[in-house]
Amino acid sequence: MCSVLNRVKPIHRAAALSLRLKANTEGSSYAAAQSRRLSPGVTSFIEPLPVTRRLYCSRTQKAEGLLFRQLFEIESCTYTYLLADTGTREAVIIDPVLETIDRDLKIIKELGLDLKVAVNTHCHADHITSSGLMKKRLAGLKSAISKYSGAAADIHFSEGDKITFGKHYLTVRGTPGHTDGCATLVLEDQSMAFTGDALLIRGCGRTDFQQGSATKLYESIHKQIFTLPDECLVYPAHDYLGQTVSTIGEERKFNPRLTKTKEEFVKIMKNLNLRKPYKIDIAVPANLVCGLQEI
Amino acid sequence: MCSVLNRVKPIHRAAALSLRLKANTEGSSYAAAQSRRLSPGVTSFIEPLPVTRRLYCSRTQKAEGLLFRQLFEIESCTYTYLLADTGTREAVIIDPVLETIDRDLKIIKELGLDLKVAVNTHCHADHITSSGLMKKRLAGLKSAISKYSGAAADIHFSEGDKITFGKHYLTVRGTPGHTDGCATLVLEDQSMAFTGDALLIRGCGRTDFQQGSATKLYESIHKQIFTLPDECLVYPAHDYLGQTVSTIGEERKFNPRLTKTKEEFVKIMKNLNLRKPYKIDIAVPANLVCGLQEI
Repeated sequence: MCSVLNRVKPIHRAAALSLRLKANTEGSSYAAAQSRRLSPGVTSFIEPLPVTRRLYCSRTQKAEGLLFRQLFEIESCTYTYLLADTGTREAVIIDPVLETIDRDLKIIKELGLDLKVAVNTHCHADHITSSGLMKKRLAGLKSAISKYSGAAADIHFSEGDKITFGKHYLTVRGTPGHTDGCATLVLEDQSMAFTGDALLIRGCGRTDFQQGSATKLYESIHKQIFTLPDECLVYPAHDYLGQTVSTIGEERKFNPRLTKTKEEFVKIMKNLNLRKPYKIDIAVPANLVCGLQEI
Repeated sequence: MCSVLNRVKPIHRAAALSLRLKANTEGSSYAAAQSRRLSPGVTSFIEPLPVTRRLYCSRTQKAEGLLFRQLFEIESCTYTYLLADTGTREAVIIDPVLETIDRDLKIIKELGLDLKVAVNTHCHADHITSSGLMKKRLAGLKSAISKYSGAAADIHFSEGDKITFGKHYLTVRGTPGHTDGCATLVLEDQSMAFTGDALLIRGCGRTDFQQGSATKLYESIHKQIFTLPDECLVYPAHDYLGQTVSTIGEERKFNPRLTKTKEEFVKIMKNLNLRKPYKIDIAVPANLVCGLQEI
């Protein structure tokens, strides 16, 4: 078990680039999200989940004493997640975004939480993480990311490590494919999985830049994510259609890419022809140093 | 108890206006949402909820066998809610939006739900409801809205009426102030409240058009919403900052407007100087006829 408090490394703060850290509200990624809106209609061939496998977001909370908040950053369509132990007040934040740092710190303060770890599921290309700046504002906070990410952080985790907060913990599952350092974080009772940019709702992360590999992503999702229980809630790092949650059972049945063979999946991913994320040239260098530049 | 299946009135379909029913992606309401982003920082005077009143979104589901999905429409920042009985498959949708009708019908189909009622919490001014078009696509679906809304629907509910789906029901609480026909829908065990445009997360609906009255809104929220249990989850019709949920306890303590006296609240609401919703001239006439025009 990885103690999040023991495996501390000094954070590397690069001063090479001076970045604009204000929210970019020009909306180009918003426009991209809009252009990705599907309008599939209600096709008659959709076969509903059979009764015996109707596994939903029924909100049947298994983990007792867990605080959970899902938060959204509208420009990059990123979800940030806040989890805490309602007894000890210890908390973890997943994929916090620079533009929404004030909102996130305000809610943490209001709820009286003791934020221990800011985790990134991977080195993002579409937005800058707030984990570095958050560390400057909250004494004792540690940043964490996969050791395969190549990014600086206090904690570098790998397969099977546990990120603890009070009596709760998240277990790391390595899910490379979108990047080499992508991880999925699974709550102790396997009722929730934070899948980052590996598995999205009825979709998946792109595999055409950084260390992207469609073959790796297909294997990661099938071996590391689809082996979770059908009723496990899927919380991705992004959604561009306003969906907030899915389940493993639903994705196994309805994900239009992952229900294909590996060969078909690779072909689909090869022909997506997505445009380059407009923030990639500032986001990746910044995220390699925990989002910190000359702030 | 109001039987949602018995109180059926023929829907009034006006053919006077021909509306563009495609999503407007010009982003002017998005820009307005961006301009409303708060950047309050982490102020030292925020007093966290005391331990005895730390009432959160802990996802401790009381209502057994309830399916719940929160969905977001990014242009008007509207939340649509889908609730269903996991046994009977009967479902209710709250505040569905025209632009996301295909997404919503697809998830209803995939999950094998039997959508009984499309409820609007009020006659919206910022977007067109999809309830009318949804009725055309789903046989047996009924639309519902407050009898004080002035809008056409199959069911006109009022204070204390119940909207049933399987073994579950939502109880109507009249919460006028944003409009005369605003209602808050409360789940049978008071664990969830769908507050429409009355109570928002750390905010409230505007009171400067339609039948807006700051005095009425203040009284509605204090008498009809703040009397719910502290741990009751608050699900509003909108959020412009990416917040998805709050609790009654939090809003009672941290809502910057509703923690004021009535006189101070009225003054605040009088001086908001908000610009007119850019869709009001098409949205209100359309919503008065269930969103149906010459489709």
